[in-house]
Amino acid sequence: MSKVGIIAHGTSQFTKEDHKIESILHKSTNDLFQKNSSIAKKEIDAVLISTNNNSKYLSPILSEMSGIQPKIAHSIESLCNSGTNSIVSAFSYISSGLADMVLVSGAERYDSPGQILEWDNSRGEFKHPIFWASIFSKSYKQEYGILDEELAIVSVKNHKQAKENPNALSKKTYTVEDVMNSKKLTDDLRLLNCSRPCTGSASILLASEEMVKKYTDMPIWITGIGQKTTSAGFTKNISLSSMESTKLAGQSALKMANRNISEIDVAEVHDAFSVCEPMILESLGFTKPGEGMKMIKKLHETNNFMINPRGGLIGTGHPLGATGISQTIEIVQQLQKSAENRQTDNPKIGLIHNMSAAATSSTVLVVEK
Amino acid sequence: MSKVGIIAHGTSQFTKEDHKIESILHKSTNDLFQKNSSIAKKEIDAVLISTNNNSKYLSPILSEMSGIQPKIAHSIESLCNSGTNSIVSAFSYISSGLADMVLVSGAERYDSPGQILEWDNSRGEFKHPIFWASIFSKSYKQEYGILDEELAIVSVKNHKQAKENPNALSKKTYTVEDVMNSKKLTDDLRLLNCSRPCTGSASILLASEEMVKKYTDMPIWITGIGQKTTSAGFTKNISLSSMESTKLAGQSALKMANRNISEIDVAEVHDAFSVCEPMILESLGFTKPGEGMKMIKKLHETNNFMINPRGGLIGTGHPLGATGISQTIEIVQQLQKSAENRQTDNPKIGLIHNMSAAATSSTVLVVEK
Repeated sequence: MSKVGIIAHGTSQFTKEDHKIESILHKSTNDLFQKNSSIAKKEIDAVLISTNNNSKYLSPILSEMSGIQPKIAHSIESLCNSGTNSIVSAFSYISSGLADMVLVSGAERYDSPGQILEWDNSRGEFKHPIFWASIFSKSYKQEYGILDEELAIVSVKNHKQAKENPNALSKKTYTVEDVMNSKKLTDDLRLLNCSRPCTGSASILLASEEMVKKYTDMPIWITGIGQKTTSAGFTKNISLSSMESTKLAGQSALKMANRNISEIDVAEVHDAFSVCEPMILESLGFTKPGEGMKMIKKLHETNNFMINPRGGLIGTGHPLGATGISQTIEIVQQLQKSAENRQTDNPKIGLIHNMSAAATSSTVLVVEK
Repeated sequence: MSKVGIIAHGTSQFTKEDHKIESILHKSTNDLFQKNSSIAKKEIDAVLISTNNNSKYLSPILSEMSGIQPKIAHSIESLCNSGTNSIVSAFSYISSGLADMVLVSGAERYDSPGQILEWDNSRGEFKHPIFWASIFSKSYKQEYGILDEELAIVSVKNHKQAKENPNALSKKTYTVEDVMNSKKLTDDLRLLNCSRPCTGSASILLASEEMVKKYTDMPIWITGIGQKTTSAGFTKNISLSSMESTKLAGQSALKMANRNISEIDVAEVHDAFSVCEPMILESLGFTKPGEGMKMIKKLHETNNFMINPRGGLIGTGHPLGATGISQTIEIVQQLQKSAENRQTDNPKIGLIHNMSAAATSSTVLVVEK
């Protein structure tokens, strides 16, 4: 398997603005090419679009707008982890030799159709992810004796970190009391425990080893990939207080990278709701079951941005198709030491965790300098 | 690059029936597993869905319905050539080593949203493919002095061939007069010159060389892949009487397979409208520019099923996301000599051509015994 590296990236502001999906996609792609003007567009073999938007043929449209005539051009959808699915697909096109350079561009509108899951009839009237997030919260709190006030710290920490991210949707910081007093959505969920859908895009350029050498002296390599789908309906999960697909994807990614979880210096994990962050940290093996909040509290108190330096989904906003790509860009910036006020201490190995639909599927990437 | 083979396939009837997309997908997947009961579902690493349907998360849904827990699971969309894009993606997952066995399942409803192209503002009110098909027909007829009565032969031939395909939408045969007297849609297009959208699905299982050897002694290998996107809007085409993306994709696929077009024994080509068939044959190099109808007439008169043995899109129906997969299955059956009344004379090398949106993008596959 030949090496695949990340050589460029671009992003848009994450906002609540109303733009056509084509314009949103173009913003981050345009940003990428403006920051990397030496890249020859004729060397781009594939353009992959990550989105839940219902518009068709977006890859040829973005390609035409960007002056690219790719060989491979299509859209990829897998709800909230469309972004990392697209990155893995790009990896496979390069690794197989079908492509030398692949542009992956993800975008979403604030009103993404991926937020309402019509297909899971077992949810009855409750089509919104708030349904499973409430059940996860209740189950996790009961199993490990965790309080709402503790889960609120995830939101406090991630909003604090997002304040240092110029592209984040959120510009404010909050206290535990603010979270506890925010609008009550269900018995187990307050508004500030939730990531918010938004408009935004993120683009990344992947390349073969030969192309990497041609274009950058600061490449970041994708060394580990793990993916797992356990089911579609979340009621099939074997546990509601841990994430089986995340556990399996994490193990696969670390094995491929020949790394141990203790070697990970910085990570973006899919905090769609507060409860997800401790559950993910435990399922990935960063800490023991039930001890995720202990780790998060310590990081927060010491102002350590190791987990979700970008501000997570809760602070940055969650434009579904762009999220996995935005997470990956953050870890690239961390490893390249260009994360400005969010910079963690000399990280060398990073991890990205991206998931869909109550962790019925997960992707984990390991990236290294 | 490791070898990738096709080891199993399944299909549904192509109909005008009204089913949910999940049910349609499941029909061909179910057919595949019923015909190949020895396949261990736990060895399937990826499930790729090819569709233009707006439903999300279809890969995990089909996986759950089929008892598969894949690593890689997502949908792929690129309008009418979503099917071959998905096959190429499956090829890359296997060839890169990320997967050993990949299920590709394509499906569409008769009312697919991929039929109306809202994004091409240059088309004004004319969002339906009939717009470009009329312009192609007029342009091709003018350039090469071809008559409507000649183009009608494509429809006559492909309906004749579809009559031998038990899964085809069309069950009737027509004369040139029938085509000429069918409903006039535009000055240059009659109803029987058009493929019809329909409900249908097709599934195919791809595998690494090792898995191929385990499961079949009649594998068909994918030896050539070519893809090209020239633009999104068809008015950017450099010619309206030939297909640049098809020409480039064909050249790439033949080069990769180390084959010449004269070595191709049987082919499925994307006859979305009558005029497409001669244009494609010319662009692929089967015959000289302007001589496509001469080749088609000769094949028709000698009852030679070499081009579009399945009945093409015109005879078989065109469920967008399933079409490229259905085309590939036909060529697999031809090479395995299981095509019954459609069987051509001892074919060894086959070709699949699948395209989107007025040939602004094309995929060509070469497959061999």
